[in-house]
Amino acid sequence: MPLLASDKTVGRISLYRRLLSNLLQEKVQSVFSHQLAEAAGVSATQVRRDMMVVGYNGIPTKGYDVESLIESIGQLLDAPDQEAVALVGVGNLGLAILSYFDGRSPNLKITAAFDNDPDKADHVISGCRCYATRQMAEVFAESGIATAIITVPAEQAQDVCDLLVDAGAKGILNFAPVGLRVPAHIHVENVDMTTSLEKAAYFGRCP
Amino acid sequence: MPLLASDKTVGRISLYRRLLSNLLQEKVQSVFSHQLAEAAGVSATQVRRDMMVVGYNGIPTKGYDVESLIESIGQLLDAPDQEAVALVGVGNLGLAILSYFDGRSPNLKITAAFDNDPDKADHVISGCRCYATRQMAEVFAESGIATAIITVPAEQAQDVCDLLVDAGAKGILNFAPVGLRVPAHIHVENVDMTTSLEKAAYFGRCP
Repeated sequence: MPLLASDKTVGRISLYRRLLSNLLQEKVQSVFSHQLAEAAGVSATQVRRDMMVVGYNGIPTKGYDVESLIESIGQLLDAPDQEAVALVGVGNLGLAILSYFDGRSPNLKITAAFDNDPDKADHVISGCRCYATRQMAEVFAESGIATAIITVPAEQAQDVCDLLVDAGAKGILNFAPVGLRVPAHIHVENVDMTTSLEKAAYFGRCP
Repeated sequence: MPLLASDKTVGRISLYRRLLSNLLQEKVQSVFSHQLAEAAGVSATQVRRDMMVVGYNGIPTKGYDVESLIESIGQLLDAPDQEAVALVGVGNLGLAILSYFDGRSPNLKITAAFDNDPDKADHVISGCRCYATRQMAEVFAESGIATAIITVPAEQAQDVCDLLVDAGAKGILNFAPVGLRVPAHIHVENVDMTTSLEKAAYFGRCP
């Protein structure tokens, strides 16, 4: 698959899909670019430009067909088959993330969780089997896992990241508040909740 | 307080503070801009430029003093006193967020949680008192709350957001995967975990 879309473009297209799925649930069949733009908080021009990346052309007078646009976005964003994802760190945050993602993304499923706590290994949590961390390379190879979520504390995150890269992870979603060092071919997506809260408070305080 | 720093700058400065706090725990007393830059995954030039926003000047030959830099960043990012934060939606994600933020940010404390479930109101969860949603305006006024976290499902998020704005929220951290409509003076910070996971998987899949 060619690398067509930039980081921000992929983020917007993923959001469009969720907005479109909401519309579909409400039995809305078509949507104009300016309506999708308003819901996503971007300009209509931006939406139309992103649709060129998706490779979808709506009929201008009728808007986009919601169902087929969702399908086109899936062809860009999703793997051909359901993709297995791993999570490392089954603490409070890890448990919430397991439960949050259960059934949320059509083609991504967390199929393996890892934790050093022996009480957690061999249990099934939110539909996900939990393993000891030392089993990582073996489980990744068996399940063809290339995407992983880090939910361990900051001080363990780099070690876990190194293990993940060795095991074959290519894309990493990192919840630990540290900048991870990875080889150039690995993509890291950071979700930094503390920074986000501090930003909300800072800008909320500014006149 | 003047609005000095851009969205991205505030994000980086918040990250620096956490990296510096880690260093302080390891008893590191000074740090060079290139070291901080490497840990944060940005350039040393960027770090030095951000330090001008913080208003901190290190002695070039000795680097930045870790402790006083943390203090300078606090003067930029934090309210003069501890700031009360609210959370709306005490489901799995809300519970994890309450536990995650408990004691994490030096000057921000989630002091009130809201949920429509009568079984949750009047309980204390992770050190935070839980109220019925209809008590929001009253609690915000009493506690001087201006920052709020939304952890309700997508379909309830806009209604909750409207209630928060009416109650006096100025900064909102939104975990619901929808674009919220707010008046111009309200700052919304979105944490979209599904999009982040889809991006990690997409870029992990790209050659």
